[in-house]
Amino acid sequence: MALKNDRFLRALRRESVDCTPVWLMRQAGRYLPEYRATRQQAGSFLGMAMTPELACEVTLQPLRRFPLDAAILFSDILTVPNAMGLGLYFVDGEGPKFERPLRSQADIDRLSVPDMETELRYVMDAVRLIRRELDGSVPLIGFSGSPWTIACYMVEGGGSKDWGKVKALAINDPAAMHTLLGVVTDAVIAYLSAQHAAGAQALQVFDTWGGTLSPSMYREFSLPYLTRIAHELKRGDTPLILFVKGNAAHLEALAESGAEGVGVDWTVTLDEAARRTAGKIALQGNLDPAMLYGSPDAVRSQVRAVLDSYRTGNGGSRDGHVFNLGHGMSPDMNPEHVAVLVDEVHRYSAR
Amino acid sequence: MALKNDRFLRALRRESVDCTPVWLMRQAGRYLPEYRATRQQAGSFLGMAMTPELACEVTLQPLRRFPLDAAILFSDILTVPNAMGLGLYFVDGEGPKFERPLRSQADIDRLSVPDMETELRYVMDAVRLIRRELDGSVPLIGFSGSPWTIACYMVEGGGSKDWGKVKALAINDPAAMHTLLGVVTDAVIAYLSAQHAAGAQALQVFDTWGGTLSPSMYREFSLPYLTRIAHELKRGDTPLILFVKGNAAHLEALAESGAEGVGVDWTVTLDEAARRTAGKIALQGNLDPAMLYGSPDAVRSQVRAVLDSYRTGNGGSRDGHVFNLGHGMSPDMNPEHVAVLVDEVHRYSAR
Repeated sequence: MALKNDRFLRALRRESVDCTPVWLMRQAGRYLPEYRATRQQAGSFLGMAMTPELACEVTLQPLRRFPLDAAILFSDILTVPNAMGLGLYFVDGEGPKFERPLRSQADIDRLSVPDMETELRYVMDAVRLIRRELDGSVPLIGFSGSPWTIACYMVEGGGSKDWGKVKALAINDPAAMHTLLGVVTDAVIAYLSAQHAAGAQALQVFDTWGGTLSPSMYREFSLPYLTRIAHELKRGDTPLILFVKGNAAHLEALAESGAEGVGVDWTVTLDEAARRTAGKIALQGNLDPAMLYGSPDAVRSQVRAVLDSYRTGNGGSRDGHVFNLGHGMSPDMNPEHVAVLVDEVHRYSAR
Repeated sequence: MALKNDRFLRALRRESVDCTPVWLMRQAGRYLPEYRATRQQAGSFLGMAMTPELACEVTLQPLRRFPLDAAILFSDILTVPNAMGLGLYFVDGEGPKFERPLRSQADIDRLSVPDMETELRYVMDAVRLIRRELDGSVPLIGFSGSPWTIACYMVEGGGSKDWGKVKALAINDPAAMHTLLGVVTDAVIAYLSAQHAAGAQALQVFDTWGGTLSPSMYREFSLPYLTRIAHELKRGDTPLILFVKGNAAHLEALAESGAEGVGVDWTVTLDEAARRTAGKIALQGNLDPAMLYGSPDAVRSQVRAVLDSYRTGNGGSRDGHVFNLGHGMSPDMNPEHVAVLVDEVHRYSAR
């Protein structure tokens, strides 16, 4: 069945579109009262993510409010290590934790790629259900954490201010780190393949913590695994987007990675990003999410600045740009400002 | 009186030195048991910072252990807004807070530059005492927060994940934001002048949160105030260093700011930073502090990589480099690894 709105996929192929497509990282989230209601019904964040009907419901919620150009699967970047046996749990206000973080070489050697249609079936069922419910209105994005970012949590056992444990492992025992990253990469490829098979029409890898690495460590411990995913993931013409927070130093390398799109945060202008990637890849981004705290007029003006910046760096053309934030939305953001943002993207970029 | 060790000051003037000088951000800190003892004696962090004898004691502690090439005044970046009447306090594990954050234009209009030798006399007394105790062994660095970074806390009332309130003020009411930044800049200039008069032999401005701004907002709300400080601060041949976390996008502009040095975090190589600043300014940095969690051998190898990276970008010369971390030390770091780091910097860079 043909998509009713394929702007997002066309932009990722750098084809011409009637206006710039837009979706927002964490568009299904706590800033929406209906999300908070479903979350309460589910009893827990993980319960919601693991129940396909509830994951489908919250995925669709922002699309009922705003004319967004893509849906993104509601899930978590740590479903894969959870299926690998680490025991994911959430403490309110503290983020994700693992009951059994990796503590030794034996812990790493014991890891294997989970079976996607049994151990992660709830994710694939959610993808199938969302596709059915979307009924061709907009494409559905599937996603995974990046190998480095997943490994960060597996070694630390949760979030960290400075990722000292995982960085110590990387520099003290690079062979063990590469063994870990290798098996996680195998699992990520299998996970994204299964989401693709279940119906995901685009795929995004979140390397949320890649930007905390020095350039030489990034080139050793994150980039090669992103490139492996881009090269080995059989996905036909389904586009793959790599999002790295704080990745300005690596834009040229990411443009050569084999992925179709790169997500960019707001610490680099799209003008510069477009010039440095020279039409090799689509760019997604990059409004500072905090701009949503501005007044509606300020939001509109900031949106226009991002759209213009991309066009300037892309030789006067708006093609090849997916509008997004440079990072996810926060719970205290105003849904009315999201409506203003989406409206301004479409209005101002209309050809 | 001539300094016994002037490597640090010579490096900031880009003069030749016998080996690369090194100091570490937050070298006086909780990773040292003797610091924790003094902290306990003081009863509170602020009590320690506001008592010249205790501030002097903790400033000197790391120099008794390690052959560091500079001392840095023990204080806090929020002493200035505290003296402006906002009521600084600390909650353990939560960072700094203000009792009376800025909530209105009237709050901003009420601000004035504090008198340095009365309201901030405890800082100047600490500087004088430390100079006396150092007895010319190494130079003493005075410091301040940057206008943008100080304003962040003044508007938010404490730390923030996304600095939504201060960014909203900046985009909703740029005139009010510039009024605030103007008076804070006046205060910072007076504060650094007074530290210089009291004996500080180098001055550093910490723009810790400048890197959370998009390039256009950085150029409007942070960079001009750093440049104003560099131009208006009467300091003779006392060097001024600007440290911005996440500042790689702005290296060229910072090199033209009028300051003598730029502190660089670890997300850009010193090779690139040196090439882009082309000998116009000294560079300080930039080992990822998490590397101190590595083994002694790994620490040594990472130190050599930073030293070599600078030399490569600086046309084969090590001159003009002050070795430092890319951010401050953490409480759980091992003092023995600091000894290894300092030793390797001096040993490997010896001419």
